[in-house]
Amino acid sequence: MPVEWAGSGPELLITIDRDGVPGLRAQLEDQLRAAIRGGRLAGDERLPSSRELARALGLSRGLVQDCYAQLRAEGYLTSRPGSATRVAAGAASHQDPAPAPRAPGRPRHAVADFRHGVPDLRLAPREDWAWAIREVCRTAPNTAFDYGDPLGDPRLRAVLAAYLRRVRATDATGDQVVVCTGMAQALGLALRALAADGIGTLAFEDPGAPASTIAQASAAGMAAEPVPVDEDGLDVAALARGGARAVLVTPAHQWPTGVVLAGHRRLELIAWARRHDGVILEDDYDAEFRYDRDPVGSLQGLAPDRVVSLGTVSKSLAPALRLGWLIAPDRLLDAVTRGKQVADRGSPGLDQLALATLIESGRYDRHLRRVRAEYAARREALVAALATHAPALRVTGLAAGFHAVLHLPPGADEAELVEEAARRGVGLYGMAGMCRTTPAQPRLVLGFGDTPRRAIEAGIAAVADLLRCRWSETAAVPRA
Amino acid sequence: MPVEWAGSGPELLITIDRDGVPGLRAQLEDQLRAAIRGGRLAGDERLPSSRELARALGLSRGLVQDCYAQLRAEGYLTSRPGSATRVAAGAASHQDPAPAPRAPGRPRHAVADFRHGVPDLRLAPREDWAWAIREVCRTAPNTAFDYGDPLGDPRLRAVLAAYLRRVRATDATGDQVVVCTGMAQALGLALRALAADGIGTLAFEDPGAPASTIAQASAAGMAAEPVPVDEDGLDVAALARGGARAVLVTPAHQWPTGVVLAGHRRLELIAWARRHDGVILEDDYDAEFRYDRDPVGSLQGLAPDRVVSLGTVSKSLAPALRLGWLIAPDRLLDAVTRGKQVADRGSPGLDQLALATLIESGRYDRHLRRVRAEYAARREALVAALATHAPALRVTGLAAGFHAVLHLPPGADEAELVEEAARRGVGLYGMAGMCRTTPAQPRLVLGFGDTPRRAIEAGIAAVADLLRCRWSETAAVPRA
Repeated sequence: MPVEWAGSGPELLITIDRDGVPGLRAQLEDQLRAAIRGGRLAGDERLPSSRELARALGLSRGLVQDCYAQLRAEGYLTSRPGSATRVAAGAASHQDPAPAPRAPGRPRHAVADFRHGVPDLRLAPREDWAWAIREVCRTAPNTAFDYGDPLGDPRLRAVLAAYLRRVRATDATGDQVVVCTGMAQALGLALRALAADGIGTLAFEDPGAPASTIAQASAAGMAAEPVPVDEDGLDVAALARGGARAVLVTPAHQWPTGVVLAGHRRLELIAWARRHDGVILEDDYDAEFRYDRDPVGSLQGLAPDRVVSLGTVSKSLAPALRLGWLIAPDRLLDAVTRGKQVADRGSPGLDQLALATLIESGRYDRHLRRVRAEYAARREALVAALATHAPALRVTGLAAGFHAVLHLPPGADEAELVEEAARRGVGLYGMAGMCRTTPAQPRLVLGFGDTPRRAIEAGIAAVADLLRCRWSETAAVPRA
Repeated sequence: MPVEWAGSGPELLITIDRDGVPGLRAQLEDQLRAAIRGGRLAGDERLPSSRELARALGLSRGLVQDCYAQLRAEGYLTSRPGSATRVAAGAASHQDPAPAPRAPGRPRHAVADFRHGVPDLRLAPREDWAWAIREVCRTAPNTAFDYGDPLGDPRLRAVLAAYLRRVRATDATGDQVVVCTGMAQALGLALRALAADGIGTLAFEDPGAPASTIAQASAAGMAAEPVPVDEDGLDVAALARGGARAVLVTPAHQWPTGVVLAGHRRLELIAWARRHDGVILEDDYDAEFRYDRDPVGSLQGLAPDRVVSLGTVSKSLAPALRLGWLIAPDRLLDAVTRGKQVADRGSPGLDQLALATLIESGRYDRHLRRVRAEYAARREALVAALATHAPALRVTGLAAGFHAVLHLPPGADEAELVEEAARRGVGLYGMAGMCRTTPAQPRLVLGFGDTPRRAIEAGIAAVADLLRCRWSETAAVPRA
């Protein structure tokens, strides 16, 4: 059994496998070296003492001392007599600026960035993925290197079907699972299949679907029409008043309001689909991340004939893997199949087998438990910081996923607040930009997926006065 | 420097890296175990003596003996006193039937299968790929695990541009390279960009483009129109008589006739494109595989403003990797970019970095040299077998790629020959099925990419009488 050490924070995970190859010292050395090179251990960062690390990993202290000595000799670590071992400044071969400038022109937020939509890349399961690919390369039959089934490797499809049945209560066999290049492709294939089936309009949640979703609908030749969301999720009565025969929803954890689609709404939505010969697209984007209880089961399990379920490992493992899937009812499966065949003749085969291997080996679940604990702690830190610094404001959204919603007082100016926070080095994001119709109420969407706990606390503290007093005073004054 | 052993045939490649981790014995053991599990070493297959293998790999005999003993203890190998060490029957965890039934319903050809379009999957660089992914997971910055540039990782795009400039004489920077999910997606994106640019018809080579290409044109909303190929490649005058403003060609090694697009035709084709504001799609599918001389440079290098070049690692590494690319002129790049973004938001990032790592490390070139030598030997074996068994028949096609063309006597019946060969356990494939217009002459397309040398010789010998006498007697007799 591997033994793990999560360091002082979540940033560094060392996994020692006693039965593994290479030996224990090489495992430790390799992982420390990789962490320094990759920037997960920053220059001048203090390492635990050899005694502490040895105890945490169940290794001998001498082994850890040897390892530290080796890495000092190689220039990765430094230490002065009597003081702690530290990462050598400039040892990272790839500087990994924090926060990373993901999009050109994005301003940096020195104190904290509450952006959303990305998990913490420092938690990406580097070792697990390398291990899984190695296993596949060692053991897969030669045919695994050929063009595969365009719908996906049969083994992964069966593994996913079983996994989703277990954790999401879906109702599908592997035959209905199509492996895609991320959820983006899954949604695109589903939309083209709907268009081919004669469905011309996609309804989407408001606030909700980003511009890229509307662009995908348009590329499939479909119009897109917003439907309001309230505290029970999508307003099904409003949907029924529109003309759409397909709707894209996020039932487990509505993006971005964070509500769950209520039970009665689920039944209404399915009844709507049956009545109008409609199709429900279920975006199950962060369903593995519920912190207070088991997540609400998939809508697909209630109406497998009416629901296309879309999933991804972008949040659970890493977006770069580009592994997603859809589960389609039989009536759409042929069109999806043709679409996938024409699009790219199938997704990469070894990556698919690696994901199957991760799930089957239990490493996927273990990784999820590890990162889920960290994200839960971040959410608690956020809620606690808001209770301290903005006790009058309401926080909504399930204890789930990677974001919460902060309700500002009526009359507060989202845009001005966001601007002032940015001047203080804090990245905040208003809800208004995600709404098609002017929202009744100013709100902030606070992402915590890529925001370490200390930054969460520091960030909220830095804007505390903005959240506390400013708006209640000006609330009644109309702005010019 | 790694030392390699290719076994008695190409089926087993052992690579020992003296500076590598784990140690020499573990490397040898791991690779033998993987070869047995994966079926590359079949049950009851004889291994070389420890003395032979030690010499071939530059290892001590004791080390090889220890390794054999270990694998005997684990049940992978057997030996009786005084006789050779053999693979234990039933040791393969994944049985890999030979020949593998790739498509359901495909008949098996017990003696030899001259099918085309696939490389030998037994030569897939398993160890190299696992190594490259491990390197990426160890050293890549955290941002490598995020959504990437939808056009592809900038490092891979630069590496590919430099590589293609060196080996294919292309004229492009990384900015013009778009990384795709195999060549299938590259072609699809290019066709959609052409359609968006107002081009409604794609001309294609006859014989040539498979049905899937026509389907891709159709999915992009384009008509498709065949243009004849002669011994100098595409008939540009015939192309000019048609109405198409885009044409898909295989200039380096025409599929399936095996001719090169002659120099004067290249200039005519480019002149055609300039005159008609047309675009040339260059399918560079097996350009790395020329056995007699350096391959003819890419058409793209001659007219970067008029040519979209399409490439893939499906032949050089493995189809399952689904890594392809296109190089596009500036006028199409925006449309391709939008198309790729909507299609899947970018190809898998770690795989892209792994390919960049393979190329930069020299392992890609080394692998190519290794497999190129094997394919060259197969082509020689095919030519020699035909010279022996069918000396009167003409063999055409460059000393390149994975197929040659055998010209049958006038009046020969391709279909009947193919049927009779199948009854004898030999898979042959006629040219007629690849032609849109009735060909003047019966021909066979003999693929040797996935046909071991011994099978090539046995297969041609088994149909020798069919090739020799049968048709010359009946040539003058019209068939009912």
